[in-house]
Amino acid sequence: MKHSDPRQGIDWKPDPAIPLSLFRQIEIYIREKITTGEWTAGYRLPPQRVLAQSMGVNRSTLVAALDNLIAAGMIEGRRGGGTYVSGSGWHALAHGAPPNWNEAIEEGWYYPNLPEVQLINRAEFQPGIIRLGTGELAPELMPEDAFNDILRSLSDRSRTLNYLQPQGSLELREALSDYLLTCGIHASPSAILIVSGSLQALHLISVGLLPRGSAVLLEKPSYLYSIHAFQSAGLKMNGVPMDAGGLHIPRLEDMIEGGTHQGHPSPLLYTIPSFHNPTGSVMNDARRNELMSAARAGGISILEDAAYTDLWLDMPPPLSLKARDTDGRVLHMGTLSKAVSPGLRLGWLVGPEPVIRRLADIKMQTDYGTSSLAQEAAELWFAGGYHSRHMDRLRPELRRRRDFMLELLERYFNGIAEWNKPAGGFYIWLKFTASPLSIRQLFHACLQDGVLIHPGFLYDRLDADHLRLSYAYASEEEMERGMQLLAKAARNLLES
Amino acid sequence: MKHSDPRQGIDWKPDPAIPLSLFRQIEIYIREKITTGEWTAGYRLPPQRVLAQSMGVNRSTLVAALDNLIAAGMIEGRRGGGTYVSGSGWHALAHGAPPNWNEAIEEGWYYPNLPEVQLINRAEFQPGIIRLGTGELAPELMPEDAFNDILRSLSDRSRTLNYLQPQGSLELREALSDYLLTCGIHASPSAILIVSGSLQALHLISVGLLPRGSAVLLEKPSYLYSIHAFQSAGLKMNGVPMDAGGLHIPRLEDMIEGGTHQGHPSPLLYTIPSFHNPTGSVMNDARRNELMSAARAGGISILEDAAYTDLWLDMPPPLSLKARDTDGRVLHMGTLSKAVSPGLRLGWLVGPEPVIRRLADIKMQTDYGTSSLAQEAAELWFAGGYHSRHMDRLRPELRRRRDFMLELLERYFNGIAEWNKPAGGFYIWLKFTASPLSIRQLFHACLQDGVLIHPGFLYDRLDADHLRLSYAYASEEEMERGMQLLAKAARNLLES
Ligand SMILES: Cc1ncc(COP(=O)(O)O)c(C=O)c1O
Ligand SMILES: Cc1ncc(COP(=O)(O)O)c(C=O)c1O
Repeated sequence: MKHSDPRQGIDWKPDPAIPLSLFRQIEIYIREKITTGEWTAGYRLPPQRVLAQSMGVNRSTLVAALDNLIAAGMIEGRRGGGTYVSGSGWHALAHGAPPNWNEAIEEGWYYPNLPEVQLINRAEFQPGIIRLGTGELAPELMPEDAFNDILRSLSDRSRTLNYLQPQGSLELREALSDYLLTCGIHASPSAILIVSGSLQALHLISVGLLPRGSAVLLEKPSYLYSIHAFQSAGLKMNGVPMDAGGLHIPRLEDMIEGGTHQGHPSPLLYTIPSFHNPTGSVMNDARRNELMSAARAGGISILEDAAYTDLWLDMPPPLSLKARDTDGRVLHMGTLSKAVSPGLRLGWLVGPEPVIRRLADIKMQTDYGTSSLAQEAAELWFAGGYHSRHMDRLRPELRRRRDFMLELLERYFNGIAEWNKPAGGFYIWLKFTASPLSIRQLFHACLQDGVLIHPGFLYDRLDADHLRLSYAYASEEEMERGMQLLAKAARNLLES
Repeated sequence: MKHSDPRQGIDWKPDPAIPLSLFRQIEIYIREKITTGEWTAGYRLPPQRVLAQSMGVNRSTLVAALDNLIAAGMIEGRRGGGTYVSGSGWHALAHGAPPNWNEAIEEGWYYPNLPEVQLINRAEFQPGIIRLGTGELAPELMPEDAFNDILRSLSDRSRTLNYLQPQGSLELREALSDYLLTCGIHASPSAILIVSGSLQALHLISVGLLPRGSAVLLEKPSYLYSIHAFQSAGLKMNGVPMDAGGLHIPRLEDMIEGGTHQGHPSPLLYTIPSFHNPTGSVMNDARRNELMSAARAGGISILEDAAYTDLWLDMPPPLSLKARDTDGRVLHMGTLSKAVSPGLRLGWLVGPEPVIRRLADIKMQTDYGTSSLAQEAAELWFAGGYHSRHMDRLRPELRRRRDFMLELLERYFNGIAEWNKPAGGFYIWLKFTASPLSIRQLFHACLQDGVLIHPGFLYDRLDADHLRLSYAYASEEEMERGMQLLAKAARNLLES
């Protein structure tokens, strides 16, 4: 009865080697879930089909177990379907009113992830699934050897296991200060905050710098639409149209000055100028200068997300916005997640000192700082020169994958879709041009075939015809097979 | 010009070895701070005294530099005191309206830490300071060798550097499931959420399970009063009185039923039953059963904070509340921070599966999971048997420190204060019995003497006569010296 990965079904199987019939094992398992309170009153069991399948038993075996539990008053079938842990019978008799967690879960004010995002988060761990949209490097592209090296070095030095400084380890901030200088950004250690991934920086900014109800400007589509950090903090999002060169500046100026956010001053523009997620676009040099001027004229600040900046494939992108900032208008965030390792959970935020200190104080209140092990590893990563060596090795690999995916697109999607050729990052923004096709249907059809795609509406609620493809994760064989299945599913839907 | 740790002054000193006068170096340094935007318009410079001292120069040298910057329009003195980065002059001319971060900082809705807490967070990193209240193990008590071992093992195995499952690594959850069983708690891996320290669990619960405006019951005083996780989420805190045996159950029952939180149903009681922070008290066995009955009768849920449970010194505390839970009423949180390493940032939450899944979804939205390095290290920590070996070695050390601090109390505080003898954890809750004495004044007087104490009002806003002492951090020599200075400062204040 070994536990395996919990997924939609159940993380447990009866064991034929145990001298107890399968249905009795199932009965005991469920009884235990209920008596330990892991399944509370009102909990809805997964559908019988899913349960039987994930336990690897016949439906009739499962039903025999469930019947016994129903007879014991522990679970009950409900009109309209579904089997639930009893709320009134067994529990109430034994213990008075059971705790109503289901209500509690609905009452917390933090938004849940979109259903598709929750599905994706789970499906990513299904063995054998082909991930065509995943925004992270394939395991084989990650610098495992370098990390083993780093861990060995760490094991030879003495370390602090205590709570660290609010802004993060000084040694790491010094190493980052040097690294940022190579990107044209002048940042003292005192102007840097270490975060547990840049998602956390977004979260801190949303609760620490922006008044509830204020509006944030951002590219449309944007990564930021796919998460709820800003909405959960009560912020409004005002999408600015893009073209191939990034943000449409005249439209932005209109929105800053104008009527689109009446009563909601927009203190902040969030932008991903280099290798945008999801469109892959790069804001050119002139556009960046225009953006800085527009921000100055309009009195707004900028949050620059540099997650993909190091991942250029053809040539380095133009200088970052922060490098053009002369009055502390730009907050700049970076992360090791995209180019190095998302599991490490290590990012940084650069900005004016008072801002950094305020956010460090909030960070202390939410998690007392980023793991010291992750900080030490990151320090050695930069200070030991691993970063640039890794990037030099990574780029040709990613370039090959990108070219291969473009080839597959030519082969399978000609006539039904259009796409860009990204100069870096991970993403291709595929647009179906042939008559209406439901992306939601396509998503579920692909999932049935074991292929996971990222629908465009994750990045723009109203988008109806895009997919975000990523060439960073799937192997070439998976890409080949996955793209073929995707094209087939799309053509099926188009025909029906 | 090496950067040192940023503190209240400035993290920089002019370098006499550079062939440039000190005042010119200072001028250039400040000019750069302003032109890079690390000090934005309206930023208030530290007082001249503090600046000169932290730069290691005479006040006149500093003033020469400031005068030049004033003449250049970059900074300005203001009526009423203080030197500020110019908001209108230099900046506005060059760039239009400067970004107003100061306003932004005040408008974010997350509460700042209490001023004393911010001071403590910073003062803890002052070299030479004696920390008499710090709630963490001294570096020399931490298992550095074990961690070096673990890092070596990690460097020999292959690992995932990718994003992990929402609830945390399955291997770690399996190891924790086994560990929890030794504490009498039956928890499947699917009922466990890995968090970046238990503070994060508090944060997730406050935004994910509790409706805004609802009231939480808790011990008074409590650790929870010293942080703002719950208040920032818009929750009310209703303190329940304690006696030496922990929560006063009849009063709790009154509060559950009654009028103290009209219109605010209390869905949750937060409690630290074993080695309470700050009082050090332990809820006895009978009291725990009464509490469970009261919770059942009143229909409330319990959040049990087990941060100090493993740190018993005389004998193990009674079975945890979670081990007495039969209907999924208790959420149980634990952490490696107190007994092992706070820097690792690793904790866990146990509860009904739907609750755990909901909180895992929110965790994904705030930081995409806990660092994989920290999770792998923790997995080996439990699975490799390090935990129990470490506890066996730690207990006699802590016992010695506790006894020594009790001895010092006898020696220096007889007649002016009372205290408990803790059976575990880190804390002694010292109560001044001699006539009124301002704890705030005592705090600042001690800080002047290089001694850092934790005032009781951090744990109960209205408390006027307690200190939280900790015997976990200071060395015996520091304790001796610190307690002597503390007693002297207290007697001085009592006499004046
Ligand atoms: C543009 C962008 N910013 C930030 C992130 C979050 O990265 P991290 O892992 O650093 O939190 C992502 C991840 O998908 C991203 O695409
Ligand atoms: C009772 C209690 N719970 C939780 C915590 C937070 O610990 P962690 O480091 O796991 O976030 C502390 C730390 O002071 C504490 O005293």
